[in-house]
Amino acid sequence: MPKPASPASASRLPAAALGSLVRPRIRVLHGADVALGPGKVALLAAIAERGCLTAAAESLGMSYMRAWRLVQTMNTCFREPLVASRRGGKQHGGASLTGTGRRVLALYRQMEQASVEAIAPAWDELRAYLG
Amino acid sequence: MPKPASPASASRLPAAALGSLVRPRIRVLHGADVALGPGKVALLAAIAERGCLTAAAESLGMSYMRAWRLVQTMNTCFREPLVASRRGGKQHGGASLTGTGRRVLALYRQMEQASVEAIAPAWDELRAYLG
Repeated sequence: MPKPASPASASRLPAAALGSLVRPRIRVLHGADVALGPGKVALLAAIAERGCLTAAAESLGMSYMRAWRLVQTMNTCFREPLVASRRGGKQHGGASLTGTGRRVLALYRQMEQASVEAIAPAWDELRAYLG
Repeated sequence: MPKPASPASASRLPAAALGSLVRPRIRVLHGADVALGPGKVALLAAIAERGCLTAAAESLGMSYMRAWRLVQTMNTCFREPLVASRRGGKQHGGASLTGTGRRVLALYRQMEQASVEAIAPAWDELRAYLG
């Protein structure tokens, strides 16, 4: 939470407009690495959708180099790569999820969904305390 | 995940030593503000334990000013303040959780616990894919 507090007048108005919500952000740590988190998973989903690392990075406002590094970290953390890249030829720069990548993405989404459902009762009570 | 990828040799060794784990980080958004998240909740817990904002901030390696700002944001987001401060007199600089603060902290911990339990089945499957 590196965001500084905004003055009361600025924070009150959007609160009324935007309402309150709870968001579980799930991180998978593997040794010293973050193997999966919201950013990496968004990248996996974008690669699955676009079939190209450059386009996937662009769709997330991420530099190609950063996207490439995230993919390297994921591929290193898992027994089998999550993303397969093709270089050269007609499919120049293509990237796609491997079978493991698709399964890992689905399992992460399952964890997100299960988490959202599980926290609902306490969240219903907590939100009543919000201004 | 602003962490750059570490070279394979550096990321493999601690992985074996530290193992894998999953961590749900729950964020409560209120309008444009993060009303609660892991950092703010750690601060609430430290205030409850130490009874003093300076000591609480110090125990988290956080500057007093940053801790003070986080408290201001929380107190602004909720209908009633979560933290009560006492200035001057014998209790100079004292801070404690209000009834609302204690309840909100407990509800956040409930959400964390419920989330950990709910994601366990998918996590058991996912961790088998990690190197």
